[in-house]
Amino acid sequence: MSHHPPQGFRLTGLHCGIKSDAQKHDLTLIASDRPASAAGVYTQNRVCAAPVTLDRERTPGDAMQAIVINSGNANACTGQRGLDDARQMAQLAAEACGVAPEQALVLSTGIIGEFLPMDQIATGITAAAGQLGSSAEDLAAAAAGMMTTDTVPKVAGRTLTIDGAEIRITGMAKGAAMIGPNMATMLGVVLTDAALAPADAQALLAAAVDDSFNCISVDGHTSTNDTVLLLANGAAGAASLAGEALNTFAAALREVCIELARAIPADGEGAEHLITIDVQGCADRASAHKIAKTVADSPLVKTAVTGADPNWGRIVSAAGYSGVPIDPAGVDLVVNDTLLYQQGAPVPFDAAAVSQSIRAHRDTSIVLTFTEGSAQARFWTTDLTAEYVRLNADYHT
Amino acid sequence: MSHHPPQGFRLTGLHCGIKSDAQKHDLTLIASDRPASAAGVYTQNRVCAAPVTLDRERTPGDAMQAIVINSGNANACTGQRGLDDARQMAQLAAEACGVAPEQALVLSTGIIGEFLPMDQIATGITAAAGQLGSSAEDLAAAAAGMMTTDTVPKVAGRTLTIDGAEIRITGMAKGAAMIGPNMATMLGVVLTDAALAPADAQALLAAAVDDSFNCISVDGHTSTNDTVLLLANGAAGAASLAGEALNTFAAALREVCIELARAIPADGEGAEHLITIDVQGCADRASAHKIAKTVADSPLVKTAVTGADPNWGRIVSAAGYSGVPIDPAGVDLVVNDTLLYQQGAPVPFDAAAVSQSIRAHRDTSIVLTFTEGSAQARFWTTDLTAEYVRLNADYHT
Repeated sequence: MSHHPPQGFRLTGLHCGIKSDAQKHDLTLIASDRPASAAGVYTQNRVCAAPVTLDRERTPGDAMQAIVINSGNANACTGQRGLDDARQMAQLAAEACGVAPEQALVLSTGIIGEFLPMDQIATGITAAAGQLGSSAEDLAAAAAGMMTTDTVPKVAGRTLTIDGAEIRITGMAKGAAMIGPNMATMLGVVLTDAALAPADAQALLAAAVDDSFNCISVDGHTSTNDTVLLLANGAAGAASLAGEALNTFAAALREVCIELARAIPADGEGAEHLITIDVQGCADRASAHKIAKTVADSPLVKTAVTGADPNWGRIVSAAGYSGVPIDPAGVDLVVNDTLLYQQGAPVPFDAAAVSQSIRAHRDTSIVLTFTEGSAQARFWTTDLTAEYVRLNADYHT
Repeated sequence: MSHHPPQGFRLTGLHCGIKSDAQKHDLTLIASDRPASAAGVYTQNRVCAAPVTLDRERTPGDAMQAIVINSGNANACTGQRGLDDARQMAQLAAEACGVAPEQALVLSTGIIGEFLPMDQIATGITAAAGQLGSSAEDLAAAAAGMMTTDTVPKVAGRTLTIDGAEIRITGMAKGAAMIGPNMATMLGVVLTDAALAPADAQALLAAAVDDSFNCISVDGHTSTNDTVLLLANGAAGAASLAGEALNTFAAALREVCIELARAIPADGEGAEHLITIDVQGCADRASAHKIAKTVADSPLVKTAVTGADPNWGRIVSAAGYSGVPIDPAGVDLVVNDTLLYQQGAPVPFDAAAVSQSIRAHRDTSIVLTFTEGSAQARFWTTDLTAEYVRLNADYHT
């Protein structure tokens, strides 16, 4: 399915020389033809990269007009010079787009501990500004410019009609398994031509990220650079969204974020299964999320899926050590639609059939139900394969 | 080095028929010739096994005289019948040792979700009671009776003189990587002929476990059965320890527990490296412990060690996402005595030499130093190898 950027946005991607392979894009430029409300959600890692520090200062904002992204170098653990470079990169992008320096945001992903090659980036930004466009191809080039170990670009979009105006939401993301030195940074950029108050943009993005990018895990490692940005430029012509219209928009934004987020573990290098973990019946969503993440990060659960082993013990005991108070006698577990464990005890099931079901499908479903309440969470992760270990062990600094 | 049980203890191990291989011990019986103070530290997993529930009721205690242990079956996720079986197992052990039913403790490890074969266990307990002894061989047999995937029995001991009395502390443990269905249960039993008040026994054991068994991780999975017990029978003849004598004893108990705990990841199946993580300069010990555990559980840190890759970025960023507030600009990192990262920035180092050092030794040292205070923690874990994945993926329920 082909996606387009929303109205009023032009963008592109190209190779500026950060990556050694000249066939690979490593720079993306996004411009809005008018000031946009901007929101950002960032890594919780205490060791955060320079562009994260810069963007945190500038979001939420009400007049952003440019985003510049580079891949191949994360500008992380680079101290004051890294901050200066990030600030200069924003200024170069702003100048190339004809806006003020503080109207630009910066994203970086790639190796950490090395300084940005600012000459290549400056040349690249100038070249990118000269080729900005609004076609599906321009969008694809922009998505490619943020890729590191991704095997496919990740783009998602929705079009909806609100108060008679056609509104588009278009997002792109990067992220795969954490291999090599790239720290598996997850970056997401969502553009919309809806009009949003900056505070609404921030609240909606935070809520959408909570159900999407915060619900994926490949190896539990939170990067120094993780960032999701939202720009809303209002080019669709409608007034700032409010009330029911805001809810409609929020639902579509959430869908776009989930589609992008799910694509990240689905692209995990060395992974053979995408595992969807549904946790239901919890006292609150935070509890459900914590249990789901604990199960998702268990190497024993992951390797059981790799081995097509319906090993309920590993799953139930992972839920047990999440730290969430649960009644062990109230736990149900369903794997690929087969009930394995009910009210705290194993039940007879056809292990060979469940094993065959896991082996035959790339998607594995784990549903854990508790008796503490009605809150739920959905989480996505990958299995853990010998190939994953090989990829992550064989890279050398 | 050959170890003996402390005075007043007799023990043994044998094959009673739980494991299919008749060459392997699966039952251990330990008897004290007089009532002993008893302490226990248990899994925090909400899904805990029947013997854990039973022992929790009975510790701390002042008149324990028997411990019975089986391997091959964890008696976990077995409901009321499991609890009844654990209680009966304690009663059988108590009767065989000529003491009251409530004077016995029970430990189980092995597959979960299956009922104990009580006939074999009853026969085994009777046979064990007839062959109790106090030699090094009896101790070795007892240690073997608690093994599951362990490749070696784990025994440690210290002898010290307190107030003119020779006091012995002898411990045994089991645990390795979590492979198969056994949930990597970690069990430890420490015996001493010192006299301890039950409350002191409990406090000293909890403190020792905090620095030892709570500082190891193979795959972050907390078992349903994890238990460490301490019996102090006073047979050495001294009065109940107090004051400085208690501190001297505590230090030796801590050493025994650390030696046993460290032996568990060292025996991790499929592991090529034992990684020791020292975290220093933290505001409090809990913070240091949390950072160390986060680094230890990172698959990216583990695979970097597997690949002999001095990848400081993975280590520093894992520390960053532990949730502990740290000043990123104050972080130092030393791997195998080489400084890789200082005051929040990478420093030049001979990567090939560090890589060679990791490759050449089974032990890898990671030292992270912060600037928040003076608290520290030491943690042990394994690397993550393709062989680990193969072992854990290839078991089928």
